[in-house]
Amino acid sequence: MTDLRPLFVKMALDAWGREVSATSTLLGKLSDDQVMKEVSPGRNRGIYLLGHLTAEHDQMLALLRFQEVMHPELKPVFIDAPDRAVAALPSMHQLREQWTTVNDTLLDHAKRLPPEEWFTRHANISADDFPKEPHRNRLNVLLSRTNHLAYHRGQLVLLAEKG
Amino acid sequence: MTDLRPLFVKMALDAWGREVSATSTLLGKLSDDQVMKEVSPGRNRGIYLLGHLTAEHDQMLALLRFQEVMHPELKPVFIDAPDRAVAALPSMHQLREQWTTVNDTLLDHAKRLPPEEWFTRHANISADDFPKEPHRNRLNVLLSRTNHLAYHRGQLVLLAEKG
Repeated sequence: MTDLRPLFVKMALDAWGREVSATSTLLGKLSDDQVMKEVSPGRNRGIYLLGHLTAEHDQMLALLRFQEVMHPELKPVFIDAPDRAVAALPSMHQLREQWTTVNDTLLDHAKRLPPEEWFTRHANISADDFPKEPHRNRLNVLLSRTNHLAYHRGQLVLLAEKG
Repeated sequence: MTDLRPLFVKMALDAWGREVSATSTLLGKLSDDQVMKEVSPGRNRGIYLLGHLTAEHDQMLALLRFQEVMHPELKPVFIDAPDRAVAALPSMHQLREQWTTVNDTLLDHAKRLPPEEWFTRHANISADDFPKEPHRNRLNVLLSRTNHLAYHRGQLVLLAEKG
């Protein structure tokens, strides 16, 4: 039988790459003022979602066993706490830059990982438990995080000019 | 080598099932009045997104070569036209019912499709072209539609009570 792993990995990586790229394009179109606004009255601000997505993708570096997280200080502010719970946020300039470097770093590791390695365990399941739950692999992290990104991109797009 | 197709299909189907189920739960919590509202000022109304998602999932029945679409009349209103372009929409009751039956029908077909069949072509690529682009298979439709659903679920959730 043909080894279908490279094909699976391509499908999942293509979907991930498309979502990240669409989000970067959207962020490039939004002014800092627009990113400071709420996506809908009383809801999260764009800046919180930008920090949240960057923090989640940063965590993926460890979850995928690629390397240590780059900006551990983002997690308490943008994952553990809701929007407005922490008064002093990093600057917009810094967050935009971290969005880019975290995603570039992640994609660089992802592209270099051999297809068979994607079907090994992610960091939150032990080597002992993994054989019983082989779907808890690194590729599954990529699939679920792609959906997570799409979910929040659907909100960020509400900050853009209409029409 | 182990046949990894069943594992990959499980990962993709689990992600699809989770998104559909989360959307159904959300819709169950939203009153008809809430679904009539815009997700953000000047943006799509919930009823349009409900119709849009139902229409897109209905199209998947044909795209995945499962069966003919069930409600072809939804496409001109909820895919080809933007919100408010068509004045007379189906009733909320009917749309909610169609959301359920279309997704139940789709999931029923999906669960019965043998894993190897997921790696065959979808309806929008010819048998001649498919060998050159084997990633344009039925499973890839499921992956991309899962992201599409997550994108709009991120918007529908803005209609719910806060907190």
